[in-house]
Parts: sequence; structure tokens; C-alpha cells
Amino acid sequence: MSDKTLAELGESESLRLTIGRLKSSDYVLVGPGDDAAVVTLSENRFVVTTDTMIEDHDFRLDWSSGFDLGYKAVATNVSDVAAMGAKPVALVVSLAVPKQTKVSWLEAFADGLSAAIAELAPTASVVGGDLASSEKVFISVTAHGDLEGRAPVMRSGAKVSQIIAVAGTLGKAAAGLDLLRAGGSAPEAFSDLVEIQLRPKPPINQGIEAALSRASAMLDVSDSLVKDLARIAEASGVTMNLNSKDLQGFEAVLEQAASRLSVNAIDWVLFGGEDHSLLAVFPDLDSVPRAFKPIGEVVERSASAVMLDSKPIENKGWDSVRG
Amino acid sequence: MSDKTLAELGESESLRLTIGRLKSSDYVLVGPGDDAAVVTLSENRFVVTTDTMIEDHDFRLDWSSGFDLGYKAVATNVSDVAAMGAKPVALVVSLAVPKQTKVSWLEAFADGLSAAIAELAPTASVVGGDLASSEKVFISVTAHGDLEGRAPVMRSGAKVSQIIAVAGTLGKAAAGLDLLRAGGSAPEAFSDLVEIQLRPKPPINQGIEAALSRASAMLDVSDSLVKDLARIAEASGVTMNLNSKDLQGFEAVLEQAASRLSVNAIDWVLFGGEDHSLLAVFPDLDSVPRAFKPIGEVVERSASAVMLDSKPIENKGWDSVRG
Repeated sequence: MSDKTLAELGESESLRLTIGRLKSSDYVLVGPGDDAAVVTLSENRFVVTTDTMIEDHDFRLDWSSGFDLGYKAVATNVSDVAAMGAKPVALVVSLAVPKQTKVSWLEAFADGLSAAIAELAPTASVVGGDLASSEKVFISVTAHGDLEGRAPVMRSGAKVSQIIAVAGTLGKAAAGLDLLRAGGSAPEAFSDLVEIQLRPKPPINQGIEAALSRASAMLDVSDSLVKDLARIAEASGVTMNLNSKDLQGFEAVLEQAASRLSVNAIDWVLFGGEDHSLLAVFPDLDSVPRAFKPIGEVVERSASAVMLDSKPIENKGWDSVRG
Repeated sequence: MSDKTLAELGESESLRLTIGRLKSSDYVLVGPGDDAAVVTLSENRFVVTTDTMIEDHDFRLDWSSGFDLGYKAVATNVSDVAAMGAKPVALVVSLAVPKQTKVSWLEAFADGLSAAIAELAPTASVVGGDLASSEKVFISVTAHGDLEGRAPVMRSGAKVSQIIAVAGTLGKAAAGLDLLRAGGSAPEAFSDLVEIQLRPKPPINQGIEAALSRASAMLDVSDSLVKDLARIAEASGVTMNLNSKDLQGFEAVLEQAASRLSVNAIDWVLFGGEDHSLLAVFPDLDSVPRAFKPIGEVVERSASAVMLDSKPIENKGWDSVRG
């Protein structure tokens, strides 16, 4: 890895060293280096989504390494592709960092991109990007997916009496964030939770599984279980009723950390964001894939978009502007 | 337009007001509002490129309005799609602004996006985006194109004795920047040049025209004529020889402004970036489309990647990291 700074090496050479650490894939006809990349698909539609992470708003450099940020940038974007029922195939990455950033930090960032792709979305690759200088680190990723002939799974298809289910963790990323904020020995004592905050591991391949299992609605839990369920509820014109007993397993793994910080584990489960788990609605219990855990059912629309044990629940979670 | 700030309205409502000002297109199966958009093409390949603009690095808010920045963000990205010989079909836009930004600024930005799309790339539309808060304004756009069965036009296909030609302006954007820097009455005296800096108008439809006319290499002039020609030269293993007499027309329209600022107009033409004009290589003079002006020819590779009247010329222009 290079100890030189971005200012010393300039854009072209820094990009060359960074891109050199990334692998191509079968979907890439033209990779980085020209005006644009060319990506090939199995059909004539593509799925596209974008997400941005900004220093001191979405992450802190004393908590997240370059590797962590590369990993998280991939995870948070391919989860949106997966939530449409698509296979991630290509990413473009815009990165802005201070001029005095060491190129070794950029290389670690690229290694984080590569690791997340290898672990979460091995059919994808980085096909292009942009490197600039700025006062704060700014990361914007656009991810693309192939529907392979399937219909996209929208937010608007949930129907009364269908089953709500989730694949992945709930509340761990929020717990990890609170542990980092608490500082001292707390983060180290619960490093498994902190790790989900820094490097979330949503079950990307379950997006296709859900689509094949006739999921009627799906999204990834980015802002909070309740806030994201409310989005399905609004788009579908229904109410989502969660069963507290089905959430006990998610609470249980957070109890020790919650006790340490004197908070309620259920608040992390209900109102914590950033797990990027897949939240889907299935026609019935039999159609729920093995990796998905049923947590409630769709009911007739009432005043409240989301309920817990048939009682209204406050709709709160992350707002990317207000925090 | 709303006088409220982003902080007052929050992300969802601010986005709703902003996106409400954008039009959809025939290529969009699923637009903004779900986890991802779905775009349809005429075939199973897509072209993708990304570019970022950062406050105080790439623009100043006292020079550029929200409308200008929306316009420029589209122009700089669709020019990369056009430079592959593709038709722009879809854009995703990531925007970060200070929390105290008025929503009316966001609406003007959206109107700038719309105007540029209508004027430069009417087949395209904004299919998704992301809104966040930050200290400085940050704009990252990813643009997508449809090759409609054509081979992509790369940088690597230029061959000895072929013709170098350009469609669009050369040096006007750089002249506009220097006029803004000079301040006083200079910008107003040469408002046509300042306008190209703030709202460049590359001839996007000429990208397809060049591809159909068997262009062997193409890119858009983002960093400078010489620096971008050197990229074709390096990728193709040739040297590019410019004829100064063919550049006289580009110089002539800059003479008055150059005289006002006591600089040489030819320096803007050779070393100025941001016009985003299309620079292409054609097999012979007969194959050069009407909108392209021949400015030189490809010669055997020599020590210098670019020459002017067969003499070596310094390779300089914009570096997005070093400035």
C-alpha cells in the first residue's frame, strides 16, 4: 500500500492504484477507464439505486476504517437491489476525500468494496467511479441489478392477511451505534453488534429467493423496522400488525448490551435502522422461505400504518436530513 | 416554490416537492419512490457513467444558482454517455445540501435538471436519487445510456492518418471561469462565455451521429483539449497532431474576452476544460459529420502524445484532485 497522499499522486495515479485492487466480472463489457462502462444483462431491463454516506452525518472516521466504509457502501446499496428481487451486477462509486488522505486509505476502501462484493454479491463488480477532493469524506454508490425475467418486487403489493417476514438482523446496527457512542469498553464488549453497524451483512441472495417465493412487497430496513413497514403500508393501502412474541428472538440477542446501556432492547428492534435486512410480505406462511422469520401479518387499513399486537405504534426512525 | 428549509420539511417532503418537478419517460418502468428504479432498454447492454461536483472545488454558490447546478450536473454526465455513442435514458441524482437550504433552492435545482434534459437529452429522465444534509453542497449524478445495437465508441480505436474533429465549443467554459474570477463588469460583458461555464451545452445528439459515421474513438472534453486528446493517444498508441489554423475559429470568438483579461485565447482553447464538447476521430474527411469541425490528424506515435503543428505541446488541464 502507498504512503503517499492523494495530493502527491494526483487523481489518475491514485485512481489507478485503487481500481487495480478491484476485480471485473462477466457482466462487464467495458470497465473503468473510458467515458463510461458498458454492462451486459440477461434481458433489456435494469434496476438502479443510489445511496450516499457523508462524514460526520452517516459515519465517523474514528469509528470506521477505509475498509469498513467500502464494505458498508456496497452492503447498503446492493440491499436495495436485492429488495427489488434483482441480482446485483454492477456498481459505480463516487468518492471524495481530503487531499491529504493517504492513498493507503483509498486502497483499504477498495479492499472493503471487494470484500463486501465477494461476501454479499459475488456476481457484481465496480465498473466505474469518480475521485475528487473535499473537506469531508463523501461516498456515493449507484448499484445496478438484473431481474433475470422476474417482475420487480415493489412496496405496493401487500394484501390483507398476508405474512410479514424478515431475513437478517434487526436492531443490531442501532445497538452497535449506541455502543460506539457510549465508548469506553462498551464497543469491545459487544464487538459482534458494533461489527454489524460498521459492516452490515444483509442476506442479499434472499432477495431473489423472496421474489421466487412470490413476495408481494419487499424493501430493505434502512431507517427502522416501523418506519420501513409504514412505507409498505402507505404504498399498499394496508396496515402492518407486528406480533411482539415473534420479535423476542431479535430482542434476546440484544438484552445484554441493552442492560449495559440501560435501554430497552425492543426499541433497537423496532426503531433502529441500518441493518439493511430484507423485509418482505408473503402470500401465506407456507410460502415464507426458510431464511425469513415471520413477524406479523397484514391487516385492513386503520388510522395507524403500523401496529404492535394490534395497538398503534409511533412511526419513528432515521431521517437522512434531520438525523 | 417553498420558502421552508430542508430541516423544517424533512427528507421525505423535501424530496417529494423536488421530484414532483421532474418528468418521467418511456424508458422508466419503475420511477422514484421504491428501493430502486427499473429502466427498460432496446437491448441487453447499458452504458453507465458517474460524475461529482463539490462546492468550492467545482463550483461556487455565489456564481452558480440551484438551476445552473442542476443544468450542469446533467450536461456533464450525458456528455459521457454521448461520447460512447449511446442515447441517454436515465439519471440518478445524489444531492447533499446544508440543512438550512431553502426548499425553493432544491426546486430550482430540479428545474435545472429538467431544462437540461429537455434541451440536451430529451429521451432521458431522472429515475431516482438521494437527498442528505452536509456542510457543503455535493452533487453526484450517474447517467445511463442505450447503445441501440451499436458498438460502444472507445478511446482506444484511433488509427494513424485518421481525422480528429470536435463538435461543440472549445475554451468558452474556461474563459467564462476566468471572467467570473476577474469579477467586476467582466462577467456581464461576456455573458455568453460565462453562460457556457455555468450551463454547458454539449451537442449530445452528435454522439450517436459520430457512432453512425464510424468514429473510431471519442470522448468529451472535460479536462482540456490537449489532456483529453492525450487520453485517446495513450489508449490508441498514437500521437494526435493539431493544426493551429483549424483552431483559429475557436480562438476568434474568445479574442475580445482574452484581450480584456490580457491572456492568450489559444490557451483557453488548448488547455481549458468543462466545455464537454465531443472530441472524435473519424476514418477520413468524408466521414466527418457536418456538426464536427476537423482540427487535426492522427500520426505515428512519437515521444509526445499531442502535438500542435507537428511540435510537442505541454499536456496540461484540470485535475479533479489537484485542481
